[in-house]
Amino acid sequence: MTERPSGHQVPPHTEGGTADPSFDHAREPSHAERCKTLVASETRGALSTIATQPEGYPYGSVASYGLDARGNPLLFVSTMAEHTQNALRDPRASLLVAEPVPEGADPLASGRVTLMGELRAVEAPDRDLARDRYLAANPAAEYYIDFGDFAFYRLTVQSIRYVGGYGRMSWVEPEQYAQAEPDPLRGASPGIIQHMNDDHADAQVLFCRYFAGRPDTTSASMSAVDRYGFEMIAASAAGRAAVRLAFPNECLTATDVREAMVAMVQEARAATS
Amino acid sequence: MTERPSGHQVPPHTEGGTADPSFDHAREPSHAERCKTLVASETRGALSTIATQPEGYPYGSVASYGLDARGNPLLFVSTMAEHTQNALRDPRASLLVAEPVPEGADPLASGRVTLMGELRAVEAPDRDLARDRYLAANPAAEYYIDFGDFAFYRLTVQSIRYVGGYGRMSWVEPEQYAQAEPDPLRGASPGIIQHMNDDHADAQVLFCRYFAGRPDTTSASMSAVDRYGFEMIAASAAGRAAVRLAFPNECLTATDVREAMVAMVQEARAATS
Repeated sequence: MTERPSGHQVPPHTEGGTADPSFDHAREPSHAERCKTLVASETRGALSTIATQPEGYPYGSVASYGLDARGNPLLFVSTMAEHTQNALRDPRASLLVAEPVPEGADPLASGRVTLMGELRAVEAPDRDLARDRYLAANPAAEYYIDFGDFAFYRLTVQSIRYVGGYGRMSWVEPEQYAQAEPDPLRGASPGIIQHMNDDHADAQVLFCRYFAGRPDTTSASMSAVDRYGFEMIAASAAGRAAVRLAFPNECLTATDVREAMVAMVQEARAATS
Repeated sequence: MTERPSGHQVPPHTEGGTADPSFDHAREPSHAERCKTLVASETRGALSTIATQPEGYPYGSVASYGLDARGNPLLFVSTMAEHTQNALRDPRASLLVAEPVPEGADPLASGRVTLMGELRAVEAPDRDLARDRYLAANPAAEYYIDFGDFAFYRLTVQSIRYVGGYGRMSWVEPEQYAQAEPDPLRGASPGIIQHMNDDHADAQVLFCRYFAGRPDTTSASMSAVDRYGFEMIAASAAGRAAVRLAFPNECLTATDVREAMVAMVQEARAATS
C-alpha cells in the first residue's frame, strides 16, 4: 500500500517504519488503521471547500468534528459561515487532520490525512445520532448545540490521502478506512512512551540488541506504540536507526503492554545471560 | 471593517473586543494588523489546492511557510507532492493559519485567517530571498533546503478572510494586509500575560474598577496584549465581561509595557486613595 515515488529523496534517519529489512515482518497497523486512529484521536481539522468569492478558489477554515460509525466526519456549522455557504453551492470538500507536532519537531515528519468527499446537511432521521457523536467528541459544544442557526453536516468520504511522515504515504481505500478500528492504545500511548523512556531505557537497549539484531546499540528510546508493536530509535556508534518490534500478542490495553514488555525482557535476559 | 450578520447568535461572554460600549474608543489593532500578526507568529498552515484526483475537489495539506515583505507565504514543497502537482495544473489556492488553541479552550474562539490567491513557483531572481525568508521561519529545514526535488512557491494573496473568534470577523483588504506591521509584542505577549496574571492580579482589579468603570470587579485576568493596549476578563457578582484598555502610548517592547503598567497603577491609586 505504501508508494514511494522513484527519486523522491528523504532526509537520512527520518524514514518511517523499520530501518532493517530483516524486521519488515513485524506487523504494523495498515494505513487505513493509521488514518482511522489519527482521525479518531483529534476533534479539529482544516476544512477545504470551494469558495463562492473569489469563485472557484479552495477555501480553508477551521472545523471541529465527531465521527459516524464509518469514520465520516460530522460537522456542526453556522449556516452563515463561509464554508457552509460554499458547501451549499458545491458540496465537494476535504478535511485535513494532522497529528499534533511536538515542540521543536519537524512538522513534515508527523502524520496527516486528507479525507475528500461531499459535504451535505444531515437529514432528520440521522440528526440525533450526529448530535450525540459530535457532542461525544466536543463536550464544550453543549452550550450552543441547540442554537437555531447551526446545522450538522456530514463529509461522506470518497477518497483518502495518508501521509505518515517522510516516505510513508498512500491512497487508502475508503471501504478499508470505514471498516478499520482506531487503535485501542491511542489514548494510552503517550503515557506508555513516557514511562518506557523515563524508567525502562535499559530494557529498550536490550530489545534492540536481542530482538532487532543490533548488538552495538548504546541507547534507545520509544517513539510509537500500537496494538501490534512498538517503534524505537536505536543509537549506536554508527548512527541512529528506526526499529519496529512486534508484541507476542496484540495488546488492547496498557496492562497488556506492560505484560508483553515484561515477557520480552525475560526472554531476552534468559537468552543473553 | 467588522461585520456581524444579523441574527447570528454568539454564546454569552465570549465576544471579542470590548464588552462595555463606553470603552469602544480604546484603540485596538485593525483586522489587517491582527491577520499579519497571526500569520507572522506561526510557520505552519493548512494549504488548500484544487485536486487533480478526484478532479476539482479541494485538497487540504500541511505546509510550512515563511513570508515575503508583503506577507505573501513562501512555501518549500516537494515537486512530487500532491499540492504541488495540483498547483501546477490550477494555481488557485489558500493557506489557513490558526492560532494555537490553549488546552481545553473552545477552538472556535481562537483567531484564524484564510489567505487566498495564486500559488506559483518562485522564479530565479527571487529564489535566494525566498530561501532566506523560508529558513528564517523554519531553521530546521536547513538540512534539506538544497534537495533537488523541492522548490519554492509563493502564494500571492488576493483575498483575505479573518475570523478572530465569535463575532470578530471580516474580509481584509489585501493592500492593507500587505502594509500592516505584525504586532511588535507578539513574541513577548505570552510572558507578559503570565507575569501579569501570576503577580499583578490586584493591579488588574484596580484597572477594571478605575479605568473601565467597573467598581464591582472582584477579580480580573489578562487575556491579550498588543502595542495599543490589553484585554482582561473582569469578574463581578454580576458575571464576567471582556474589558479592553488602551496604553497611554504605544508599547513596542516588554519594557514599554512594564512602564505603562506602573504609570497606570500610580494614576489609579492616586485617584482612588
